[in-house]
Amino acid sequence: MTAKKKLTILFSHGSSNEQWKKEMENLCLPSTDLATNIRTAYMELCSPTLEDIIIEEDPEAIEEIKVLPIFLATGKHLRIDIPAQIERLSKKYRLSINLLPPIGEDPRLADAIKTITAAHLSQ
Amino acid sequence: MTAKKKLTILFSHGSSNEQWKKEMENLCLPSTDLATNIRTAYMELCSPTLEDIIIEEDPEAIEEIKVLPIFLATGKHLRIDIPAQIERLSKKYRLSINLLPPIGEDPRLADAIKTITAAHLSQ
Repeated sequence: MTAKKKLTILFSHGSSNEQWKKEMENLCLPSTDLATNIRTAYMELCSPTLEDIIIEEDPEAIEEIKVLPIFLATGKHLRIDIPAQIERLSKKYRLSINLLPPIGEDPRLADAIKTITAAHLSQ
Repeated sequence: MTAKKKLTILFSHGSSNEQWKKEMENLCLPSTDLATNIRTAYMELCSPTLEDIIIEEDPEAIEEIKVLPIFLATGKHLRIDIPAQIERLSKKYRLSINLLPPIGEDPRLADAIKTITAAHLSQ
């Protein structure tokens, strides 16, 4: 029997605009390149959704899913919409899906923004 | 005569939710602590707006403004709404206002997300 997978999903808002999606993919690429069990998914407006990934990977083959929100701060989507999606999918596929804090809460993101700001100041 | 100021504005979406605004302020704090001419402003739904900052600083005392979008990717707001706001304010106050690329286009942001992702993988 093959060991079940632990998936990490970089989960962002989504957009119907192709340029937006391309930029988001580029932003997540160094992260998804870390390992094959790291994927990107979108809350709405483009694919893949979180459910698309679960179906593609086969829910029976998944041990757990961590959802890392690629969001700068906690608005209505993170307080209401995304937890509701996760609860629905957890029940439907009997999966353990854990919502992590958004990247914006990690001090390393604030540090990166500081470095970017400082670079613009000196130009 | 006092030298005119060069302002850098960390410009994010804005929200009517207080938690969102508090988190965004925390995210920008290391950057705004770099120098007194770095400020935060919001596109909509909360204050200060970009115009609030211009009025508060006195447009006559401003040499130029750089607007750094605290956005992960280029959607409709960055393609249409924010350039329109900037054009209107540039004309109204006869100011040079330069829109920088969003933080999400800077490879250092992708690197920070990679570091955050890697930290979650090992937990």
